[in-house]
Amino acid sequence: MIHPGPEAENHGPSPPCRTGARSRIPGGVYPGIWTLVDVPGRPAPELIPRGATYQTDVMDMVSPLILVNLKAYHEGMGQSAHRIAAAAEKVGKESGIVIGIAPVFTEIRPMSQHYAIPVYAQHIDAITPGAHTGHILPEAIRAAGARGTLINHSERRLTLADIEACVQAAKRLHLESVVCTNNDPTSAAAAAFQPDYVAIEPPELIGSGISVSKADPGIIERSVNAVRAVNPDVRVLTGAGIQSGECVKIAVDLGTAGVLLASSVVKADDPETVLRDLVSLV
Amino acid sequence: MIHPGPEAENHGPSPPCRTGARSRIPGGVYPGIWTLVDVPGRPAPELIPRGATYQTDVMDMVSPLILVNLKAYHEGMGQSAHRIAAAAEKVGKESGIVIGIAPVFTEIRPMSQHYAIPVYAQHIDAITPGAHTGHILPEAIRAAGARGTLINHSERRLTLADIEACVQAAKRLHLESVVCTNNDPTSAAAAAFQPDYVAIEPPELIGSGISVSKADPGIIERSVNAVRAVNPDVRVLTGAGIQSGECVKIAVDLGTAGVLLASSVVKADDPETVLRDLVSLV
Amino acid sequence: MIHPGPEAENHGPSPPCRTGARSRIPGGVYPGIWTLVDVPGRPAPELIPRGATYQTDVMDMVSPLILVNLKAYHEGMGQSAHRIAAAAEKVGKESGIVIGIAPVFTEIRPMSQHYAIPVYAQHIDAITPGAHTGHILPEAIRAAGARGTLINHSERRLTLADIEACVQAAKRLHLESVVCTNNDPTSAAAAAFQPDYVAIEPPELIGSGISVSKADPGIIERSVNAVRAVNPDVRVLTGAGIQSGECVKIAVDLGTAGVLLASSVVKADDPETVLRDLVSLV
Amino acid sequence: MIHPGPEAENHGPSPPCRTGARSRIPGGVYPGIWTLVDVPGRPAPELIPRGATYQTDVMDMVSPLILVNLKAYHEGMGQSAHRIAAAAEKVGKESGIVIGIAPVFTEIRPMSQHYAIPVYAQHIDAITPGAHTGHILPEAIRAAGARGTLINHSERRLTLADIEACVQAAKRLHLESVVCTNNDPTSAAAAAFQPDYVAIEPPELIGSGISVSKADPGIIERSVNAVRAVNPDVRVLTGAGIQSGECVKIAVDLGTAGVLLASSVVKADDPETVLRDLVSLV
Repeated sequence: MIHPGPEAENHGPSPPCRTGARSRIPGGVYPGIWTLVDVPGRPAPELIPRGATYQTDVMDMVSPLILVNLKAYHEGMGQSAHRIAAAAEKVGKESGIVIGIAPVFTEIRPMSQHYAIPVYAQHIDAITPGAHTGHILPEAIRAAGARGTLINHSERRLTLADIEACVQAAKRLHLESVVCTNNDPTSAAAAAFQPDYVAIEPPELIGSGISVSKADPGIIERSVNAVRAVNPDVRVLTGAGIQSGECVKIAVDLGTAGVLLASSVVKADDPETVLRDLVSLV
Repeated sequence: MIHPGPEAENHGPSPPCRTGARSRIPGGVYPGIWTLVDVPGRPAPELIPRGATYQTDVMDMVSPLILVNLKAYHEGMGQSAHRIAAAAEKVGKESGIVIGIAPVFTEIRPMSQHYAIPVYAQHIDAITPGAHTGHILPEAIRAAGARGTLINHSERRLTLADIEACVQAAKRLHLESVVCTNNDPTSAAAAAFQPDYVAIEPPELIGSGISVSKADPGIIERSVNAVRAVNPDVRVLTGAGIQSGECVKIAVDLGTAGVLLASSVVKADDPETVLRDLVSLV
Repeated sequence: MIHPGPEAENHGPSPPCRTGARSRIPGGVYPGIWTLVDVPGRPAPELIPRGATYQTDVMDMVSPLILVNLKAYHEGMGQSAHRIAAAAEKVGKESGIVIGIAPVFTEIRPMSQHYAIPVYAQHIDAITPGAHTGHILPEAIRAAGARGTLINHSERRLTLADIEACVQAAKRLHLESVVCTNNDPTSAAAAAFQPDYVAIEPPELIGSGISVSKADPGIIERSVNAVRAVNPDVRVLTGAGIQSGECVKIAVDLGTAGVLLASSVVKADDPETVLRDLVSLV
Repeated sequence: MIHPGPEAENHGPSPPCRTGARSRIPGGVYPGIWTLVDVPGRPAPELIPRGATYQTDVMDMVSPLILVNLKAYHEGMGQSAHRIAAAAEKVGKESGIVIGIAPVFTEIRPMSQHYAIPVYAQHIDAITPGAHTGHILPEAIRAAGARGTLINHSERRLTLADIEACVQAAKRLHLESVVCTNNDPTSAAAAAFQPDYVAIEPPELIGSGISVSKADPGIIERSVNAVRAVNPDVRVLTGAGIQSGECVKIAVDLGTAGVLLASSVVKADDPETVLRDLVSLV
């Protein structure tokens, strides 16, 4: 099920490697360990290359984000969720790459309490505290320990007005906002709300097992450009067809800040091996 | 804000009193303490009068259910939710009346773990484990410790097909199902799915502060009759305008198996006093 | 694409044939032409066998209904819709079987004006005149000439409360109501609203090209029984997998009052031939 | 109910007056009659000042649009709709200002056939021809004679992905697209789709009877600026609280290309008088 990068075929998942990293970092290559710093305007500490100072013009240097959506998969709940979270914590610490998970709502709290990884909600509703039944209150997500939330995932679409209200709620509550979109015009539109991330998921690639690198890198490039034209502070995630470290490397090389993925990790026999491969080429 | 029963006006909330209780119990009055028994076909033990044997013809003797929907009220989360749950546990034990709560999804687990009261989800989605993001998986609700779930609450309406699928999912997972309806035809329709409860909420009374006893007892009677005509095993809850022990007594006297209420308890300065009043005349 | 009945294989679509018709008609066989009579409580004249008197106990004798949903098919609009409507009018007159169509909203008016066939809306919204934009007002459907409407089609699901409100609106406006359902519990539930018809569409058969006669006649029988148990006045339509006169015959023999179908007619090269086949064995 | 402009108080609705018109027209004032010209890239002829040549840099000179949403008002259907359409045609011809209407779907065809005014749909769905029941197919709207369509009206909200798909469908079918929004971030987002118009409707003003001129002109200015920053070719309509010619004048002076309104016209005793007032100061 896992599409290994070329190196992996010969000698297993490649070890973490970030020397010779992303070429657009000003001032040259930052080898070695990344470090957490508090960043004004960001809800949580950011990983930046050791020795660098966090500032707007080196914003691209923050660690890529590997965000694993556990969906409602049987393999993403209960003990299986704990196994994935433990692997994310372990590989994240080893590699210095931020690996987060988005579990079902009832598991946000235990995952946040037990693991030193960022936990995201899969959705919030555009409501404020009051007479609402069966909805996802952003305040409740925050109280449960979430660091951020997906908004407008392709399996949970929202209206334009609600997306804007959700991003505002996330800002108010210091939750990271990851707005999912389906093409470059919707990515540009989402960027107008100034979320932390726009995650572009070309619908034809979702769950297809087709790597974005082979299918349509153009849509990622166009989305990155469309988002930057509207608001250069909004970071882009590549959100479909991610299966290997090679995919992640291409995603980062195309200018995105990381990846949003699901089945490749959740349905793997050994999530730790997959995660280690995913971060291997960044 | 609380509408006290007539006795309460003189000497505080009346003490628990169920001697001389519901006249339709065969074989006369069952005073004193109720006791928990395992009942075939019910997902959890039922309270029945001590000395009675659980069987179909005494099914009406099971304890009424007081179900408190905490909604997304600020006063129904975090420490406030704990305070309400503790009061429900205390008053429930004192009175032998079952008092349950329906908190936000992220608090189902801690509430279930900390309190010996039935906890309900406010909603489930008609999905099975798989690629669904941001939805409420019935299996996840069950795993978090819920005893049952609201379905089709007036603030979270579902399609006919989804209501049926949700009731089936609840049966499969041994979750109690409480289907909310808005009038007697929809109550009859819901009864066709054989849920454990149909909770009738006349829309004109929701949040109105108007007691069903003064407004329209006819709608409760018609709904009870409509439900029984379709399926006599389905119990009915009275779901709007409940504010006092007098309201609960009228609801039970009209043939319903209890009440579904929210703001009267959640927004009370002292939930314990309100709960004690609610069970005082049953 | 058309699944011909056994006779059709040898000598083309069989001619209209209703002698030796439905065995449950009291008093024997009613050969020949059916006739329109005004029926108390029905919004429009009904076809009954000539010589019979319309009364409750011969209600089963009313003509079966062949209802063709034109959906949003390219082949169901404009000139193509006119061709289908003309064929429905012609074959309906020849056979005495009522053949109706459900076109897109903008073509309800011209179809109603130009053809002597019943025209149905594909959907109505549960609204009354007022500040609603982009919704389907039942009054507007009536004013455009519709005789009835589909409600809760599988491609346009409604909430339980809205289905009930739509059926009430249809009654108020003397529109025939055809509530679509997906299994026997939802059929029973829909019957509680006393619509004119419940159209059962097993989801696994919709658009499958699989005839209900070969797939699962049991679901039709169970739905008919479930509907009759709730309200014997509600008629049932068989709503998926109908492709030939043989299918229609089986549907009627199973106790349903006709069929709801779409692609078999709409996408046919010659709709008239298909319609003639459909009515051939009733 | 009508809020007359200051002149109107003294001598009735002021006569059409566009001499000394909008100051940002390059080359000075264009008095007198406007004339229809075919414009590349526009789905229908545009009104421009007589003597001018249509070109991009005088695009602001096109006539303002007064778009009357008839909603599902009883007073906006049947004979009442004809009365409003006739008034729109008459006042439009007199004044040279384009006055369009958005009737219920079933009346798009007769309105388009009988009146020389642009007719808009109130909504389209993001579908293409095929197996969809009860939805609004853009192709059907076009075939019925509509010149354009509202998209994402506050009473019919759409997802981000569907808004984008609807704007694309409108472009493909040469329908004018009017995307409704609720604040300046959503206006900027909508502009990313390059619709013909963005209609900003501050929710607090909808149906309030409060003129935008007195309430919050800032939201209009911010929306105009937000839209222009994303795409200067997208025109803005002012969409709430419009009741008089003074309101229209302020809307145009704030840089918008016209107004979207409803009850002021539809519920007026004499729509013609109101329309004449609305165009009186432009």
